[in-house]
Amino acid sequence: PANKKLLVLPGDGIGPEVVREVRRVIDWMDRRRSVTFEMEEGLVGGAAIDALGHPCPDRTMQQAERADAILFGSVGGPKWDSLPFESRPELGILRLRKDLGLFANLRPAIVWSPLAQASSLKADLVDGLDLMIVRESTGGIYFGEPRGIETMPNGKRRGFDTESYTEEEIERVARLAFELAAKRTGRLTSVEKANVMQSGRFWREIVTRTASEFPGVELSHMYADNCAMQLASRPKQFDVILASNLFGDILSDLAAAVTGSLGMLPSATLGAADASGRRHALYEPIHGSAPDIAGKGIANPCAQILSFAMLLRWSFGMDEDARLIENAVEKVLAGGLRTADIMVPGAARVGTSIMGEAVVREL
Amino acid sequence: PANKKLLVLPGDGIGPEVVREVRRVIDWMDRRRSVTFEMEEGLVGGAAIDALGHPCPDRTMQQAERADAILFGSVGGPKWDSLPFESRPELGILRLRKDLGLFANLRPAIVWSPLAQASSLKADLVDGLDLMIVRESTGGIYFGEPRGIETMPNGKRRGFDTESYTEEEIERVARLAFELAAKRTGRLTSVEKANVMQSGRFWREIVTRTASEFPGVELSHMYADNCAMQLASRPKQFDVILASNLFGDILSDLAAAVTGSLGMLPSATLGAADASGRRHALYEPIHGSAPDIAGKGIANPCAQILSFAMLLRWSFGMDEDARLIENAVEKVLAGGLRTADIMVPGAARVGTSIMGEAVVREL
Ligand SMILES: CC(C)[C@H](C(=O)O)[C@@H](O)C(=O)O
Ligand SMILES: CC(C)[C@H](C(=O)O)[C@@H](O)C(=O)O
Repeated sequence: PANKKLLVLPGDGIGPEVVREVRRVIDWMDRRRSVTFEMEEGLVGGAAIDALGHPCPDRTMQQAERADAILFGSVGGPKWDSLPFESRPELGILRLRKDLGLFANLRPAIVWSPLAQASSLKADLVDGLDLMIVRESTGGIYFGEPRGIETMPNGKRRGFDTESYTEEEIERVARLAFELAAKRTGRLTSVEKANVMQSGRFWREIVTRTASEFPGVELSHMYADNCAMQLASRPKQFDVILASNLFGDILSDLAAAVTGSLGMLPSATLGAADASGRRHALYEPIHGSAPDIAGKGIANPCAQILSFAMLLRWSFGMDEDARLIENAVEKVLAGGLRTADIMVPGAARVGTSIMGEAVVREL
Repeated sequence: PANKKLLVLPGDGIGPEVVREVRRVIDWMDRRRSVTFEMEEGLVGGAAIDALGHPCPDRTMQQAERADAILFGSVGGPKWDSLPFESRPELGILRLRKDLGLFANLRPAIVWSPLAQASSLKADLVDGLDLMIVRESTGGIYFGEPRGIETMPNGKRRGFDTESYTEEEIERVARLAFELAAKRTGRLTSVEKANVMQSGRFWREIVTRTASEFPGVELSHMYADNCAMQLASRPKQFDVILASNLFGDILSDLAAAVTGSLGMLPSATLGAADASGRRHALYEPIHGSAPDIAGKGIANPCAQILSFAMLLRWSFGMDEDARLIENAVEKVLAGGLRTADIMVPGAARVGTSIMGEAVVREL
């Protein structure tokens, strides 16, 4: 196959450290497979602010436009906390999502059996957990207009935002969620606050209409508050969960926490496929830049490595290679190696690069 | 003391059943104490729709205006699920909150030691948990304008809502949260998405400014997604959590789920105090109308009984009586009685009225 253009955006905090471990995996693939990756590196987040004065400079956007897939680390840290809203590091990821049209953020919450003990939940409630949250990621209150902080005619101030969803926005992410559910166990839970929000009512209406295209999928609706309760008490009841940008943000982090192994969880954010099936796509760990442990060599590289596996599967259809990597990670865990975040008594505690090496050795 | 005017609004589902058990407690107080309650009953939710065609009729609002405190059951059920948005049972509670100016919804999440096993979390992570969520309850996206479902100039439809907070709205609920934190362990966590929402930035600004009035309280800020993660993994790190209407809705239900005993949790919703210290206030269990178990006599009456204890404490300053009731509930639990929702092997399973009787007997 033709060379694949990969853009790597390590970003801030532990981003560069964990991305480094993925490079080992890529080297291994370059050696082993006919496919080779054409890699380019770019600047994003605080790193881009420091070098170029913008969290997502146009140069990075041009690189992103050209790339077949983007491997993203993480952004943000105390160094940039006092920057104005318009130039904070988070804009790096927000602009990439918005300007590349990456409307579907796929966030698996998976518990690997060797790690079931790591959850704050009782092991039997999470062992074997395998759910997927499909979060809308270019719309809703993240981008809705009008928004701002203003002085009202009475001289008092207020802050405001707009939650807004068009039928196309809901339909395209719903379709993707239905397709995914159809390939899994055929159950989709759509989440909103239709009892309180007009956009929630509309969300429910459009998702219900879209369901008629997918007779094989069983659709149910759940309020966001109830969904949070259910995730914390009986998470295994879910297969695929569909939610807006804001609810998806909260619920996917909650689901990740429930697994007990945040440092293990990848994500994919996908755009629309063109006629040739090509789509923009970005892959990043669920965890953030973790400034408190950055530079110490103790971060868990698995989420970043597994994000690369998702990249192979979703962007290049290389399911077999993705599975090889996932199996290698599982074997390393089963063998008893643990980074600090997933440490249990009796396991061998290792740092970032030993963990990365171990995965490549398994491969 | 003068007679206290109590308005009782049982509502739908299990509401009437659990409110009935509170009447026993009130009878006991009438017999025992100098205070007597002047009770009135009113209609709300589906029950009010059926009888008077509105989920919160003006008659109920007039009763509420006159009352010193309101004891609320729960509203909603499948019977009214297909009603239009403008006349759904939930409007009952929303109108009461809004029109009475009940801006602070206090939701304790408490784990009674005898129930620590009931949590989906490992017992040591929740044993002794005692946190309080202060949720803003008359503003934000629940009531913000403009909102609606509209057809755009291009012929396509969209649904939208407005999240909006003025400085007064934030300040008054923040003050209440700071006061509460000062009386507890002195830690307050304010939750928003200041990294994404303008109203979140503004929320953080005003809460930070208000902190200067409360030098004894240690304020920290947390993003809503992170707060959900922390509640599910290390809930005991929190004392008081302050959040907007929407985030508070989700996070308080999550915190309730984490305790594992939703059927045990009360809440209070308070208005502003006037010069004489009098304020409107409504007390209700966190759990909803639970239509699936309504009429079976198996619902747990404790949350409703404990809501009455909160009423005594917050509306009438009757701390001692409140504590008597709370202790009675705790003793009944310690004695091994359990309703179905908190059942454990070896305990004695009882229904709603036996549980209620047992609490009165302990008193
Ligand atoms: C960094 C931040 C803007 C972002 C979000 O809120 O979407 C993050 O929490 C995420 O979920 O990717
Ligand atoms: C009944 C519903 C409108 C309500 C809300 O969303 O506020 C409920 O979930 C609550 O938390 O009291």
